Amino acid sequence: MVIAEDLAKEQKSISVAEFFEKNKHLLGFDSPTRGVITTVKEAVDNALDACEEAGVLPDIFVGVERREGGIFRITVEDNGPGIVPEQVPYVFGKLLYGSRFHQIRQSRGQQGIGISAAVLYAQLTTGRPTAVISRTGAGMPAHRFHLMIDTATNEPQVLLHRETEWDRLHGTRVEIEFSSTLAAKKRLMDYLRYTSVVNPHTRIMTDIDGETHVFDRVSDEVVPCPKPVDPHPHGIEIGTLKRMAAGDDVPLSTFLTARFSRVGNKTAAEILKRAGLDGEMKTGRLDADALKRLLDAMQETKVPPPSSSICLSAIGEDLIRQGLDREFMPDFVRARTRPAHVFAGHSFIVEAAIAYGGRLESEGQASLLRFANRVPLLYQQGACAITGCATGVNWKAYGLTQQGLPMGPLLILVHVASTNVPFTSESKDAVAAIPEIEREIVLALQDLGRDLKTYLSRRDRKRVQEDRARAICSIIPEISEKVAEIVDLPVPDTTPIEAKIMQKLVAKKRSDDGRVYIGVSNYTEKAAEITVCNISGDRAEDASQAPDFVEEYDSEFSKIWKCRIEPGATWEVSYTGGGGGTLDVRGVDDAAKAVIDLDHQ
Amino acid sequence: MVIAEDLAKEQKSISVAEFFEKNKHLLGFDSPTRGVITTVKEAVDNALDACEEAGVLPDIFVGVERREGGIFRITVEDNGPGIVPEQVPYVFGKLLYGSRFHQIRQSRGQQGIGISAAVLYAQLTTGRPTAVISRTGAGMPAHRFHLMIDTATNEPQVLLHRETEWDRLHGTRVEIEFSSTLAAKKRLMDYLRYTSVVNPHTRIMTDIDGETHVFDRVSDEVVPCPKPVDPHPHGIEIGTLKRMAAGDDVPLSTFLTARFSRVGNKTAAEILKRAGLDGEMKTGRLDADALKRLLDAMQETKVPPPSSSICLSAIGEDLIRQGLDREFMPDFVRARTRPAHVFAGHSFIVEAAIAYGGRLESEGQASLLRFANRVPLLYQQGACAITGCATGVNWKAYGLTQQGLPMGPLLILVHVASTNVPFTSESKDAVAAIPEIEREIVLALQDLGRDLKTYLSRRDRKRVQEDRARAICSIIPEISEKVAEIVDLPVPDTTPIEAKIMQKLVAKKRSDDGRVYIGVSNYTEKAAEITVCNISGDRAEDASQAPDFVEEYDSEFSKIWKCRIEPGATWEVSYTGGGGGTLDVRGVDDAAKAVIDLDHQ
Repeated sequence: MVIAEDLAKEQKSISVAEFFEKNKHLLGFDSPTRGVITTVKEAVDNALDACEEAGVLPDIFVGVERREGGIFRITVEDNGPGIVPEQVPYVFGKLLYGSRFHQIRQSRGQQGIGISAAVLYAQLTTGRPTAVISRTGAGMPAHRFHLMIDTATNEPQVLLHRETEWDRLHGTRVEIEFSSTLAAKKRLMDYLRYTSVVNPHTRIMTDIDGETHVFDRVSDEVVPCPKPVDPHPHGIEIGTLKRMAAGDDVPLSTFLTARFSRVGNKTAAEILKRAGLDGEMKTGRLDADALKRLLDAMQETKVPPPSSSICLSAIGEDLIRQGLDREFMPDFVRARTRPAHVFAGHSFIVEAAIAYGGRLESEGQASLLRFANRVPLLYQQGACAITGCATGVNWKAYGLTQQGLPMGPLLILVHVASTNVPFTSESKDAVAAIPEIEREIVLALQDLGRDLKTYLSRRDRKRVQEDRARAICSIIPEISEKVAEIVDLPVPDTTPIEAKIMQKLVAKKRSDDGRVYIGVSNYTEKAAEITVCNISGDRAEDASQAPDFVEEYDSEFSKIWKCRIEPGATWEVSYTGGGGGTLDVRGVDDAAKAVIDLDHQ
Repeated sequence: MVIAEDLAKEQKSISVAEFFEKNKHLLGFDSPTRGVITTVKEAVDNALDACEEAGVLPDIFVGVERREGGIFRITVEDNGPGIVPEQVPYVFGKLLYGSRFHQIRQSRGQQGIGISAAVLYAQLTTGRPTAVISRTGAGMPAHRFHLMIDTATNEPQVLLHRETEWDRLHGTRVEIEFSSTLAAKKRLMDYLRYTSVVNPHTRIMTDIDGETHVFDRVSDEVVPCPKPVDPHPHGIEIGTLKRMAAGDDVPLSTFLTARFSRVGNKTAAEILKRAGLDGEMKTGRLDADALKRLLDAMQETKVPPPSSSICLSAIGEDLIRQGLDREFMPDFVRARTRPAHVFAGHSFIVEAAIAYGGRLESEGQASLLRFANRVPLLYQQGACAITGCATGVNWKAYGLTQQGLPMGPLLILVHVASTNVPFTSESKDAVAAIPEIEREIVLALQDLGRDLKTYLSRRDRKRVQEDRARAICSIIPEISEKVAEIVDLPVPDTTPIEAKIMQKLVAKKRSDDGRVYIGVSNYTEKAAEITVCNISGDRAEDASQAPDFVEEYDSEFSKIWKCRIEPGATWEVSYTGGGGGTLDVRGVDDAAKAVIDLDHQ
């Protein structure tokens, strides 16, 4: 049939650059407006990764400058280790070229696509080359390049390469120009703000269309760079095992201990026994059947989970809490860092946090902040497994209303850190729905939900009490004032009455004629075991009940009484002295006590 | 700084096969269960494309066979034109290799990734090669191949190639094996069912784990294969223009008319005048500035929209309606095929349909069926622009409740056909949010929403009338029976009274003593222009009003009177005869008339 011959003539190889030029939305270049954010994101990701690898505190400049004719120049500059001149054209001018793809460790960039995609986008839409300056140290010259990509071959084209002056001792600067708008400025600033929240050791200076801002570092501690690890025996697939075995040709026992994570001599022996293979056998001699048995044995043998502490870098509960506190000043904030787990041989850690109240918007759905490997995810919220989990949790069980996401002044933060974050596309906007990861996210959120429920029910209880108190406070004093007026007597102190109605423990202190009187009345329905603490200049040597403990500090005396007060009863003490100072009752919730110091009223 | 040198050692090129091996979820291989569907989908897409190109009616076999140890063999066989033996290894054993990537026309496969990804997945997870049989015609031998992919180079590895016997005269058969489950069987059958709905010329025979089914063709018409077109001047980008100009080196005027869609001599002259360029100038001599001016002029000059009729293949309103009718038997179904539009130079057509009632589930949200280039989209509904549009429409305005999607016994179908469907990932599960496409989807859905509203309000009005009628029917006959009993007379015929209350047109026929009486009373508030049609054995030659038309067929006489009846009036006719037969009134809605044939009561 002649048609097959005709069709054959049309068949050809597609370069990866051609593919992504046609499908640029896959890389986050859906529109020129979004292109600005994607370009900054890819460059900043690279800058942070490079600084982390070199162990320097990142000092990053991000500029977006309006040029003639709707063109914007996007500049990102870092103080990283720089790139050796021979590599610069490949790093920026070839897709699928990089250092982190073959390593098993957490990093922001993984694919060797991002920044080259920005170069590709600029040349496609505006026809302009990208300028790169890089310097690898004080003794070295800086190199300037003008680069493009030959899309038919996916190879870099160097239009200019010369040594240049540069004020940074080491680092990299990239300048990319294309037609765009500043419509996404708010989102860009959000991206930088959240980046700074989860990378507190980073300083980012920005100059967006003439407006400058500094996201300063809040920590001077260099984040330890995650180290590459070997693959874990539980996550290996037959294709990879075959390739590893063919490439090595060493005795099987050496192969297992040297090339896999968490496999010692004992584990190796167990795997070999289970597979019925000799440890002395060379890996090159394994046939398909032996490989299959080896793989099965590796997966059936108990091996400790991957050592995530080396290859992963969690943000940590404290840092997340601090970041959210600083940004939103919530009334409640809790964070959880879950233990490390594995999917398909890749270690991962899920971290989550919930914040409530404060500056958070009280109308509408909760805000959801998504992070992957310390990078904020800004787009495709609907497609993200994090969103799926957050909407899948039954928040009603935790006292919240829910329409998809829970409603109210609520913020949910989820961070997935992994040696290989499974994104739904190359633009790295959304985490794919991997069951193992989803399970961890849900557990973290449920855990936080329970904490939030406790907080909310405590707050609600308090609120009911406060409502009641407010009602009382607005009526009783008025009545007593009226009555006092009628009988022409001074207005009485109504606080104990209020406290009684409010079912609290009421502690009262007053001084009269050189004597101090302290009384605690229990208006609750349960006996109270409390500690009464009175700090003042009085030694209280003649106290009607001797304190259980007295301490002098700086001419002030702390006097402490322990006592048990039955419901309805009052405990009293008095001593000679001038009064003043402080009175405190410990052993009951704040909500269940009222301390009335008449010395200070 | 030594660190830059160290880092440089880690830098390397990543083969596209390695990239997708690591990121296999991007290609729809998130899990072994889903892997089955993705493999079938990619193979069936290719089969349908190939049959379309060869102009044959597709006859496809899909088999999923359980083998030893949790392994499944997925077989897809077609009667397409076959693949010449030299190409087979590349088509199945190299990613980014294909015939449709560089063509501007609608096709299912675009990227040259799909089926090779399945081969890659099988070898990675199960270590097995893929078997392919292909034959290009009756006079040719069939060839059998066993193939794998060398991931480090993205080149095919041929493990076996020999001629073989095969019962098909032409076509291709692929057998891929990997560990999986049949958990997604229902979804697989859904995929095949919907594929058959939008490809009515296709026969798909299935054998899933021993259970066979045939989705037969309902049309014997070969779908015309969309033809490739040249790029449209409005959608071109500077990078592409530069490449085209450099590749051609012909006079500018020839370049414009020969290489672009919809550009004739007049349009070319206008573009050249606007750009200030000479039509005789060779394209190879265009510098950056001239190219920019040419591009601007191309985009500013008015050019007719792309000729979508050639390169696109819409399903069509009739076919969509028929397909939905067959599957769901809805009470209401409407479809819209919107006119062709353009985004970034790619033509596209949006088609949509709404079905209501019938077999559709009345609880919960509407079902959403998404299609792109005649392929059903099964995954990532949340990430799809179609979903975004369907939930973004204000369905409340059309009389529906809404929680994201509208609620009720409702089905929404959207088909996006384009020369380049912008998917959110290589797995082609979801359409990206391109504003031009979104706009068309929303317009189509709003248009259908208005139709649905009309239907629903008419149905509601009818329902009110029917409720009223039901009330009347249950009271009036009872009253008349009682009255008849009291006055001891026969029960009168209350139908005209009912009809009067119900504000209808009432037609009545009765036979009495060899004479037939027909009367039509207008109880509505408007004059009625109607046709009265009476079919019976009577010739009605002596009719009191001569019929406007009489026809004899098979000893039956159709007698037709045209008449106009004022509100409150009655039109009458009588003739000699035996009666019987039928009476019909045309020219008013069924809801507004009652035909009472006393001959048959």
